Order: sequence, then C-alpha cells, then structure tokens
Amino acid sequence: MLIVSSISEMQSLTSRLPRPVVLVPTMGALHSGHLSLVRRAKREAREGGATVTSIFVNPKQFGPNEDYKRYPRTYERDCELLREIGCDIDVAPEASAMYFADSTTTVVETELSALLCGASRPGHFSGVCTVVSKFFHIVQPRIAVFGQKDYQQFLILQRMVRDLNFSVQVISEPTVREPDGLALSSRNAYLTPAERAQAPVIHQTLLQTEKLIRTHQIGFGEIENWMASNISSAKLSKVDYVAAVDPGTLESKKSLPLLLACAVYFGSTRLIDNRLIT
Amino acid sequence: MLIVSSISEMQSLTSRLPRPVVLVPTMGALHSGHLSLVRRAKREAREGGATVTSIFVNPKQFGPNEDYKRYPRTYERDCELLREIGCDIDVAPEASAMYFADSTTTVVETELSALLCGASRPGHFSGVCTVVSKFFHIVQPRIAVFGQKDYQQFLILQRMVRDLNFSVQVISEPTVREPDGLALSSRNAYLTPAERAQAPVIHQTLLQTEKLIRTHQIGFGEIENWMASNISSAKLSKVDYVAAVDPGTLESKKSLPLLLACAVYFGSTRLIDNRLIT
Repeated sequence: MLIVSSISEMQSLTSRLPRPVVLVPTMGALHSGHLSLVRRAKREAREGGATVTSIFVNPKQFGPNEDYKRYPRTYERDCELLREIGCDIDVAPEASAMYFADSTTTVVETELSALLCGASRPGHFSGVCTVVSKFFHIVQPRIAVFGQKDYQQFLILQRMVRDLNFSVQVISEPTVREPDGLALSSRNAYLTPAERAQAPVIHQTLLQTEKLIRTHQIGFGEIENWMASNISSAKLSKVDYVAAVDPGTLESKKSLPLLLACAVYFGSTRLIDNRLIT
Repeated sequence: MLIVSSISEMQSLTSRLPRPVVLVPTMGALHSGHLSLVRRAKREAREGGATVTSIFVNPKQFGPNEDYKRYPRTYERDCELLREIGCDIDVAPEASAMYFADSTTTVVETELSALLCGASRPGHFSGVCTVVSKFFHIVQPRIAVFGQKDYQQFLILQRMVRDLNFSVQVISEPTVREPDGLALSSRNAYLTPAERAQAPVIHQTLLQTEKLIRTHQIGFGEIENWMASNISSAKLSKVDYVAAVDPGTLESKKSLPLLLACAVYFGSTRLIDNRLIT
C-alpha cells in the first residue's frame, strides 16, 4: 500500500490512477465497520481500479466543546489493517496542509443539515461537506463509500453531490455491530465498562420499536416518546434526540417508510444509531 | 462548435475531451471582453486541447431586486461569435436543470466576499462560487479564464480553488474598454445616451487617482474621498462604493500596491471597474 501525506503529491498521482478510483474517507481509528467499507470499495474497483482510503481527523466537523483532541488516533495500526485488506493507497494529510490560517471557503448544505445530529452539532455537516469535497477534488474518485451508521451524513453527501454536480457516486454499506448489537464506532473506546454494558439499549430499542410498528402495537404519533423512554430505562444514558422521520427529507412523518434515528450520551460519549423501516 | 444543453451529456463528454480543457464561464450577452477571454483560452488549450465556454445567466448570483429578468440574453448571436472565434464546445444548460426546487448545497467564501461588491450584494459571491463549482465539476477544466473587470470575483475564485483543492488554475485577462475608457460590460446596454456619455468618468477617475498617487499629490488617507467626489462630478452618477485596498485581502491599506475599485450607479444600472496600482 502506498502512503501519501502530501496533498499535491496525491493530486499529481490521481490523474495516473487506474479507473475506477473508489474512495473511503475516514477519520482513522479503524474498526471492522471501516474495513467493511474498504472491502466494498475493493469490490467496486474490481481488478482494474484503485481503492483509496483517506485518514484525516477533520477539525472542522468538531464543535468547540467536542472530542477533537481526544478522538482516538491509531495511525500505525490503521495502516497495518489497510495493508492486510489490500487497500492500494492511503492518503493522510496534516491538518495544517488541509486548512490554511486564512481558509475561508466552505461547502454548506442548509436543509438536511439543520435536523437530527445537525441540530445538536451546529457546523458539523458543513465541516463534513467541506472536507469530503476537498478529498473528492484531491482523489477524484468515481465512487465513494460511507457507512449507514451515519445515515444523515450519507444523505447529505448524496444531496451535495447532486447539487454541485460532482461526478461521484456516493454509496453506503450496512452498519457493523458487536455481538450484543452495539454499532461499531471509534467512540465506543471512550465508554466505561458500566456504560459499555448499557449501550446496547440503543440498538435493542430500535429493534423493539420496529416490532411494535409492524405489529401495530404503537401509533406513529407515539414512536418518539416510546423510544426515548425505553432508552432512558438504561440509567447511564441521556437521550440527545430520538426521531421517526422520512428517510429522504428527515422531516417528521406518520407513515412508512420511516427512519428511526437517535443520539444518546453515555457520560460525555455521544453515540448514534438508526434503523430504516420500509 | 458543439452546443451541449444537457448537463449529463456534457459530463459524459468531459471524460473524452482532449487535454488540457480550458473553460470560460459566462452569462452570455457576449462582447469583446468575453471574446478576449476565449482567445486566451484557445492559447492555453493550444492545438491539442479543448476550449469550452459556458453560457448561463445564473439566478443565484442576482439579488431579489437586481436585474436577473432583464439581463440581456443574446444566445443566437453569442453562438455565432463563439463559432467564428473557434470555440470547441458551448455548454448552455437550463436554469431548471442547474437548480432543483430542493437544491440546498452552496459554496460559500466568507471573508473576501463580505467586502466591496459583496457588501452591496449579499449572497452574490456565494452564487458565483456555487455556479462556478458546478461548472468545474461538469466540465473538469484544467484552466478557467475570468476577466479582470471582476477583480474581486477572480480573487474569490482563486481562494475557493485553493481552499477546496480544485485541480483548476484560475487565470485572468485584462479588461477590454471602449475607446473612451468605459469597461465593456453586458450591462452597458442598459445605459441611456446621457448616462452612457457620463459613464467614462469611472475609468478617468481611476487613471487620475493613479497619477495623483504616483506624483504624491494625494495622501493614502484621501484617496477614497477624492475618487468619490471626482466620480460625483458626473451628475447622473451615484457612487455605490469606492475603495483603495490591499489587492490580496481587499482590506483598507495606506501603501502600494493598491487596488482601486468602485461601483457606480447610472440610473438603475450598476457599473464596476478597478485598477491595480503596483
């Protein structure tokens, strides 16, 4: 695997890469969820193309009181995993090369980004859209792969690609889970043993809510209250939001298909998960 | 010359174009200023490359009380001129294909865009950055050519390209002028004969200001007042702004090099011009 830290080096390499180029943008601290994205990228690139990952903990998508500084950084191990799995190129620029002191241009999506996680994390999705635009320009992929755990991010990036006419297809892969259902996340490393023991309540609640909806034991107007109260049965949890919304617009809705989504704090660790009910 | 109105058709054509591709984005109503940009594009493309113009009156860069509806549209004549000059491709999409009802993604430059024309025209440069990003993605040029009359636009697009890592070189060509010095602009067509007769005061003022600076007959602190009062000697003029600023940051400055810039109304017609004093 080729490791490229210089943006200009990557840009001059880009034009010579075999096609199609498939990109997996990550913030590192790789787990099986990321690796499933890279495996999908390899399938999309087939024999002839190139699989590229980016590893970059993007300061612009963290709020001032969020976990940018303590976000896990496991770069050596990440590279080993990517090498083993057969990734072709890893691009890992420094923050100072990605953002100058007088960088003043951002990519902003205003509607989907105002809802769900965007309401709790102002500026987050603009940081995501900006950094993903930058990597799209640097790597010029034909396809980019994202995880369904970040469903809202996936939806916003699809909107961005359409609105700005990027020649990139944004695709997604299912969330990978621990045996007890907890969605894999680099942030799970923050959890204390007691928090970790209670965190599966998130996925359990999503599954139970789906069952109640399908068996008509719950009305559409009651879903969010039920989800919030069920999650709150775990004493260490604090619900940030729960939502039952249109999977295309993220607006509240009282019919199927529905996206069930939530963000839950355990201590200072914020976990998200979702389930699409079609 | 190939005329392409479909965005997806242009995007599939883009990958097959000979390199380098050089783009001249315009709003049509072409005059000799535009043609000088196309000539420059042809020189940059040399024998082997492709010269592409876009003609699109971009609704997103006009304010609600501006001249979007009455902006001159001379498409047939524009195509004739481009054909004569040897442009290879003209891309001219419909507004409804460029912007969907639920388009919610924009490219925003926040610092340079707040000054000069940006202070008078909120949202204008975001409209420009967004549409130019879209054409960059659709045409994937190696080089894009803009006019120096729109110096601030040129500067903002250079910043955008740097900040978002576009693989595009943004270059400029000198302003083309009428024999009496008035900068060519599609908006000159709005002027009444009386307004047209007085409009050269703008360029004359820029020239005279340069002379006063070079001969030390004026202090740096007096430039803007002098420019405003000299322009106002033309009875039909109304100064929007005059500025003597740093050519890189557009911030006020009391030493050379300086950008002298102004926007002046004649009736409802807003004209801009500038001069770089190095």
